[in-house]
Amino acid sequence: MAVVPLLSDEEAGAEALAVFDDIRAKRQKDYINTFWRALVHDPATLKATWDRAQIVMAPGALDPLVKELIHISVSTANGCDYRVHSHSAAAKAKGMSPAQHAELLSVIALAAQTNALPTALSVPVDDRFKA
Amino acid sequence: MAVVPLLSDEEAGAEALAVFDDIRAKRQKDYINTFWRALVHDPATLKATWDRAQIVMAPGALDPLVKELIHISVSTANGCDYRVHSHSAAAKAKGMSPAQHAELLSVIALAAQTNALPTALSVPVDDRFKA
Amino acid sequence: MAVVPLLSDEEAGAEALAVFDDIRAKRQKDYINTFWRALVHDPATLKATWDRAQIVMAPGALDPLVKELIHISVSTANGCDYRVHSHSAAAKAKGMSPAQHAELLSVIALAAQTNALPTALSVPVDDRFKA
Amino acid sequence: MAVVPLLSDEEAGAEALAVFDDIRAKRQKDYINTFWRALVHDPATLKATWDRAQIVMAPGALDPLVKELIHISVSTANGCDYRVHSHSAAAKAKGMSPAQHAELLSVIALAAQTNALPTALSVPVDDRFKA
Amino acid sequence: MAVVPLLSDEEAGAEALAVFDDIRAKRQKDYINTFWRALVHDPATLKATWDRAQIVMAPGALDPLVKELIHISVSTANGCDYRVHSHSAAAKAKGMSPAQHAELLSVIALAAQTNALPTALSVPVDDRFKA
Amino acid sequence: MAVVPLLSDEEAGAEALAVFDDIRAKRQKDYINTFWRALVHDPATLKATWDRAQIVMAPGALDPLVKELIHISVSTANGCDYRVHSHSAAAKAKGMSPAQHAELLSVIALAAQTNALPTALSVPVDDRFKA
Repeated sequence: MAVVPLLSDEEAGAEALAVFDDIRAKRQKDYINTFWRALVHDPATLKATWDRAQIVMAPGALDPLVKELIHISVSTANGCDYRVHSHSAAAKAKGMSPAQHAELLSVIALAAQTNALPTALSVPVDDRFKA
Repeated sequence: MAVVPLLSDEEAGAEALAVFDDIRAKRQKDYINTFWRALVHDPATLKATWDRAQIVMAPGALDPLVKELIHISVSTANGCDYRVHSHSAAAKAKGMSPAQHAELLSVIALAAQTNALPTALSVPVDDRFKA
Repeated sequence: MAVVPLLSDEEAGAEALAVFDDIRAKRQKDYINTFWRALVHDPATLKATWDRAQIVMAPGALDPLVKELIHISVSTANGCDYRVHSHSAAAKAKGMSPAQHAELLSVIALAAQTNALPTALSVPVDDRFKA
Repeated sequence: MAVVPLLSDEEAGAEALAVFDDIRAKRQKDYINTFWRALVHDPATLKATWDRAQIVMAPGALDPLVKELIHISVSTANGCDYRVHSHSAAAKAKGMSPAQHAELLSVIALAAQTNALPTALSVPVDDRFKA
Repeated sequence: MAVVPLLSDEEAGAEALAVFDDIRAKRQKDYINTFWRALVHDPATLKATWDRAQIVMAPGALDPLVKELIHISVSTANGCDYRVHSHSAAAKAKGMSPAQHAELLSVIALAAQTNALPTALSVPVDDRFKA
Repeated sequence: MAVVPLLSDEEAGAEALAVFDDIRAKRQKDYINTFWRALVHDPATLKATWDRAQIVMAPGALDPLVKELIHISVSTANGCDYRVHSHSAAAKAKGMSPAQHAELLSVIALAAQTNALPTALSVPVDDRFKA
């Protein structure tokens, strides 16, 4: 179904396998997501993406769960089915409750609606919102 | 610049003014955003949107600030400049720190990138992510 | 503000001017929209776009006003401020009433919301909806 | 395939079942779309969405069929496969002819194209289009 | 799965068959893509789309392979799975190497990210970028 | 107009100034784009974005001009006015001719149109396009 074959460990080269090793060690499980297997064709982007994701998703001023909710929000607006699934799973793994999931969806739906209205009317930004 | 004129209190009818009164009371300030002024042309949608926004944005299983971050995320992905401004201002008013803002942006940027890659490769969703 | 200069009649070549003549004749007014002036740099695309627009927007199985409403809908979802303005003006010129405009906006806003929810949940299409 | 399980009538609580009863009564058929079954997890959003949809899609200044065409237009631009299917089916049920469907598609395709060109050139909105 | 049935040669009328004949002659193979079969319902749009595609995709100031890369880029940003597949296949047929594919993906991913950041911050366009 | 103030060299800290120095050295001009000035608030993302952009945009299997065309394509589809301007300027600086610009626009417009049609019809991907 994919545009490129998803490569097995045996088909991956040393550079990609080193990233897989790091993913397995950090996540403490053997399974490698199809996304990373699709990126094996470009080990440099595989490594850059994995490295950047770890930095950005680490705990910081925002809670890791909140970062997953942001991912789900962007992925929904972009219509990226892969990321909607992977980050919904990650959010559940980080403790998202059914009530939090339901509220997330209602905010996303409200935002979609309140994005459409000012766009359809070309409402000018209030001066007080500008930096 | 807008597609419809932004109406003043004097030009608004009783139904719209009642919503303005409610906005002013709940927000405890006199200023009415241009968005609401543009919706005066359709008082029913004005009222429905305001009513729904209050329900959805109220404190619940998710913190009100987190709800603002979700709004900014969706609005960025949808390219809605009005909402990027209004919810960034709202998030700051609800305590978003510069460090939180910076992390929000880095997660949004990461999500945009990690949405593009699986879409460009049509990566199939892992079975384990399905309900 | 544009990426290319908007060219005057004097700066346009014969091929572009012929399209301008046709636009003026068909619309029975002298004014040429900035969109067409920006396309003067590529007279072939200017002509192809104008020709196609006339065929597609002509009265047929759908009313010309309905076709304008479809344009506004797509342009809002795509966040194209230019087309939101030009087709809202065209729709008014073709008789769109304030009540119709208000209903259009409420349907667009509903659609945005009911697009976001199934996307965020990856709801499978009902078998009965498939051809 | 969905992010959450689609719940049966037996698994739905009283609040969701009351919405299902209303859907069945208004639509005069027993079948409940997968979309509503996915929303059972959040009965408040299920009810709010169903209630709002009925108000917005009711006959008014715009014909119910035209409202379906607007839904298809927005859903196409947003890339929402679920809604493309559900509203294409609804439009056919409300009398959309093959000729109307064909014209709808040609207008949507034209709009996509004439959205891309001014965006790629950042064409400024004509003063005469502003309210 | 499609919204309309994909029609066979036997089901297609004379106008659509004439386009199929042209596609077969120009591409020098018998297979007709599902996209064209779905458009058989509207022979005028089928013909207009095929004719326009041939003009636009022909060798010119840009190399045909570069035109395929542009198609993949737009299709990824629009989330059009059909076109991501068809133009990735076309690009490979026109000689896209694995290294070129990998670089294409890394540029698309970078662009997605560097689109999100200025949108989230509403960065004003530098005067020097304006025409 | 921006969501955050654009910071001057004087307001930027040492980490951001080091990136500015590198930008100035590599581009051999003193001017710093507003985009980079907006990112001064988050020096880590400023540096990561600049570093990644240099790697991705460097000459490789794809020509630097082609990479700019890909950026313009994605930015148009995403509706990012900032990037449409900055990469159109960069493409011109790298030698994009008016004829190439015109062809780029015609391919982007064709792609927008041929993305909308299969999405509106939910055309299934041909088996032969799958890896």
